[in-house]
Amino acid sequence: MDIPKPKSKQPLPDDAKRVFEGVIFDVYQWEQKMFDGSIAVFEKLKRADTVTIFPVLDNGKILLTKQEQPGKEPFIGAVGGRIDKGEKILDAAKRELLEESGFEAAEFILWKSIQPISKIEWSVYIFVARGLKKVANLNPDSGEKIEPMPVDFDEFLEIAMQSNFYEQEVYRDVVEAMLNQDKKMELKKFIMGNN
Amino acid sequence: MDIPKPKSKQPLPDDAKRVFEGVIFDVYQWEQKMFDGSIAVFEKLKRADTVTIFPVLDNGKILLTKQEQPGKEPFIGAVGGRIDKGEKILDAAKRELLEESGFEAAEFILWKSIQPISKIEWSVYIFVARGLKKVANLNPDSGEKIEPMPVDFDEFLEIAMQSNFYEQEVYRDVVEAMLNQDKKMELKKFIMGNN
Repeated sequence: MDIPKPKSKQPLPDDAKRVFEGVIFDVYQWEQKMFDGSIAVFEKLKRADTVTIFPVLDNGKILLTKQEQPGKEPFIGAVGGRIDKGEKILDAAKRELLEESGFEAAEFILWKSIQPISKIEWSVYIFVARGLKKVANLNPDSGEKIEPMPVDFDEFLEIAMQSNFYEQEVYRDVVEAMLNQDKKMELKKFIMGNN
Repeated sequence: MDIPKPKSKQPLPDDAKRVFEGVIFDVYQWEQKMFDGSIAVFEKLKRADTVTIFPVLDNGKILLTKQEQPGKEPFIGAVGGRIDKGEKILDAAKRELLEESGFEAAEFILWKSIQPISKIEWSVYIFVARGLKKVANLNPDSGEKIEPMPVDFDEFLEIAMQSNFYEQEVYRDVVEAMLNQDKKMELKKFIMGNN
């Protein structure tokens, strides 16, 4: 699968310099020519890209998760996490699926890829995973509590419309499905396949 | 007008230390106790809060703007910008309205206030401004090109539904209006007043 990098609305220029390296965020700065010819220092952040996976079980349920992370309100989301340094996007999707659900998938289909925030160089790759086989127990890291929450397609739409649904990057797609019956059927077919 | 600070989904702890000070973003870190008792360094950003103003003209048009900023795709938005250090929220709204539209307003009504991104300590205060009087020419800074774009309420909804509309913080409200006629009338009344 060829997965192109999504475009930012405010791309990081090639001559930007890293001025800080954090545990999540690196800070970059560059000299930007303004409309009047003057120069200003512009700033943009960079963080590890992430994968998000919506696993579709053979019984026709989408496997969402109830999650808790330290210092954060509990939330409902899919499974996913950061792509490690040097790791391939699809390998990260497989690893996160396994760690957070215990499943392996026969098939990963790219739903969409976006850079959600113009001031952060950060790509999110969103997959649907099908042909699932339970091969292990959940193995979340010490900063996660994860509980599986299988839902049908209509429940998924309802949950994804709520403001505390973690995967905000699919909100726009879900809205379009809620506003247009044809698009709803199209999205259902895309996510559920023949399930 | 009493304007409470909106709540973050992942509040910055009091003991967080600033480890970097940038031109837009400051980086904070703290030691977070994990679920298994171990300690990890967590990180969160902080940036200046911003105001967004939707000016409603006496002719019943909402004054949107076409904007360009260096190194960024052109976009359509409202007016607004950063709250300066020590500046009051409402004073910032008045200043930005004047700079970016040349108008003074008799009335500012708080539409909503939110922290849109859990990993950035950043509040956005969104106002509707009415009773507008043109008192000056536009005075954008050297990093902005601004062109007024007055639209009626239905045009506003249509534009606000598009993915390149800058004021993403009102997208959810506009979606609710598109999905429910009562909510649409409610929102129209709230924004337009008696116009």
